[in-house]
Amino acid sequence: MGKLWASSRVLTRFSRLCKLSNKTNDSEWAKGMAIEHPYLLFLGDAKDQLAAKTAQGIAHWRPDWCVGQLRLEGCKADLGLRDMTLDEAAEAGARTLVVGVANRGGVISDDWITVLEAAMILGMDLAAGLHNRLADVPVLKAAAEHHGRRLFDVRHPSDSFAVANGRKRSGKRLLAVGTDCSVGKMYTTLAIEKEMQARGMKADFRATGQTGILICGDGVSIDAVVADFISGAVESLTPETDSDHWDIIEGQGSLFHASYAGVSLGLLHGAQADALVLCHEPSRTHMRGLPEYSLPALKDCMDANLAAARLVNPAVRFVGVAVNTAALDEAEAAAYLAGVEEEVGLPCVDPFRHGVAAIVDRLDEV
Amino acid sequence: MGKLWASSRVLTRFSRLCKLSNKTNDSEWAKGMAIEHPYLLFLGDAKDQLAAKTAQGIAHWRPDWCVGQLRLEGCKADLGLRDMTLDEAAEAGARTLVVGVANRGGVISDDWITVLEAAMILGMDLAAGLHNRLADVPVLKAAAEHHGRRLFDVRHPSDSFAVANGRKRSGKRLLAVGTDCSVGKMYTTLAIEKEMQARGMKADFRATGQTGILICGDGVSIDAVVADFISGAVESLTPETDSDHWDIIEGQGSLFHASYAGVSLGLLHGAQADALVLCHEPSRTHMRGLPEYSLPALKDCMDANLAAARLVNPAVRFVGVAVNTAALDEAEAAAYLAGVEEEVGLPCVDPFRHGVAAIVDRLDEV
Repeated sequence: MGKLWASSRVLTRFSRLCKLSNKTNDSEWAKGMAIEHPYLLFLGDAKDQLAAKTAQGIAHWRPDWCVGQLRLEGCKADLGLRDMTLDEAAEAGARTLVVGVANRGGVISDDWITVLEAAMILGMDLAAGLHNRLADVPVLKAAAEHHGRRLFDVRHPSDSFAVANGRKRSGKRLLAVGTDCSVGKMYTTLAIEKEMQARGMKADFRATGQTGILICGDGVSIDAVVADFISGAVESLTPETDSDHWDIIEGQGSLFHASYAGVSLGLLHGAQADALVLCHEPSRTHMRGLPEYSLPALKDCMDANLAAARLVNPAVRFVGVAVNTAALDEAEAAAYLAGVEEEVGLPCVDPFRHGVAAIVDRLDEV
Repeated sequence: MGKLWASSRVLTRFSRLCKLSNKTNDSEWAKGMAIEHPYLLFLGDAKDQLAAKTAQGIAHWRPDWCVGQLRLEGCKADLGLRDMTLDEAAEAGARTLVVGVANRGGVISDDWITVLEAAMILGMDLAAGLHNRLADVPVLKAAAEHHGRRLFDVRHPSDSFAVANGRKRSGKRLLAVGTDCSVGKMYTTLAIEKEMQARGMKADFRATGQTGILICGDGVSIDAVVADFISGAVESLTPETDSDHWDIIEGQGSLFHASYAGVSLGLLHGAQADALVLCHEPSRTHMRGLPEYSLPALKDCMDANLAAARLVNPAVRFVGVAVNTAALDEAEAAAYLAGVEEEVGLPCVDPFRHGVAAIVDRLDEV
């Protein structure tokens, strides 16, 4: 296993860390610093490809940020990147080791800890979107402090946001909203950012969930913010900017999800969106995690989002619908999308199959 | 000052505590235990009557739970209760010293700490709704552990709620919603509980804010819950109950408040209300804290709340409107209430001036 991730140079320096004092050194995430790239993507002992979906998202959307992957013995995931030892990654300029894999049973194993610690010795910061905090592992906390490295626990924002003030901010904002959770809001907004940048438009993706944060190096895990500060956290995530600049804001949840609608509404108000994109997955038989709740009709979902969003921006409008048609064949998908386009009178695309050009075309009118 | 709050018996035992070890002993609030009464209401050095409004609410709604008040030198507030030393309060059976006053500048002063510590020596638990936690003051934490007392920091719930499941629960629920923050939702729901109990109906106030929690000894400070768990926390606050029992749930914020609407929507969904009461304050010129936002029309506010509440209970309906007419004279108030009653076709009362009997009358129809 050692061959895969570290040379003897690291291991001989390892024992020193055990003598470090255990001073307080919280996660750096609270301080609003961006995660530096290039990344080394750590896949650990991922039991299958799905367990490494965070790393896969990063490799897909930020291929030029990723110097390689680091896999432990028994790892069943593969991103198709170059396998690297820590030494090789450090020499290739890796600034941050990103834990892009779910930890089994919520435990950060000793094998992982040794690798993470060694990465810090070699000059890398650590970033993870785990439920457990890296900063809660004493030896990682101590090593980070001793070596001047940073620990980014992106699922755990600090509470130090202001209450939202609702004041009009310069610049333009697009927000993805959904009929349900996990219907492609992150994919859609990243695709819109990419399309806009390719056209030379000023656009930046603004992440509100842990994978999105690791993909763009910054953001707020909005569902982990204290309730009073949901909208305020989004206001701070998308501050005043140039009048021709677009913040492309990742959405979360749904106004029609009985567990999470409060998060979605706070996000909608904080975003002060000029443009909304509705995201949908047509094969769902019920709301995610709620077998007794059916999905809203697209039109009802759009009306409810518009009504709520108008509170902070009366000029808000929908510019398109993004549908994840993975469960449909090509002909079914085309028929479905045409039907929705007819129904709502707006471009309707599958961002994965067809891209989002038709939606971006509409932004000139906003 | 010593005369006001403690005898020498307390002071001679005081120095012992300094030697205690500082083991971890978090606030008891996380463990879902109710605060025991009778209460001794601590007014500290309140600079005016308003600074002690939490204590005033407790004394108003739970007079038989309050053995007396404890005021430090310079205190400008007075609840009209008997002034007591800690010894007298302990002898009168006080189980909990409740900090019913805002602390100046967010600092728990040394004078306060000495009193709070002495109260624990004399057998009392401590409860407070301060921004700062009692449990974060090392000497209070240590004393609580040593003497087996509990610290209730009611503004700071734990994160250990489940995500809402949205399943139908037995029993009936009434929720107060508002056109704005601070328009009388707590007062209205406490008045409804009192009126229902006086009629022999099964009803319990369910607190969602710190003053409400201190008034009823239990509850969840909902705006301090992590965003993902807003609705889940409310579901746990109002679990399944007898089919003829009413939970009377304190509301928070407003769907039309650009800072806090996410909290209000999560609360609305978690409450699964059968009956809603709209609360309003007609003299407001803008939404509280948001000078650029005007108040919604009553009918629009009712429609938006109904639409959102129907997601979890299609049978939900409004049963009345409660207006704080303090800024109007008797004739103006009567005219205003009659106008609203005409407009919405439901009982419209000022709970303080006229009681809530007309609203409770409507509950038979729900």
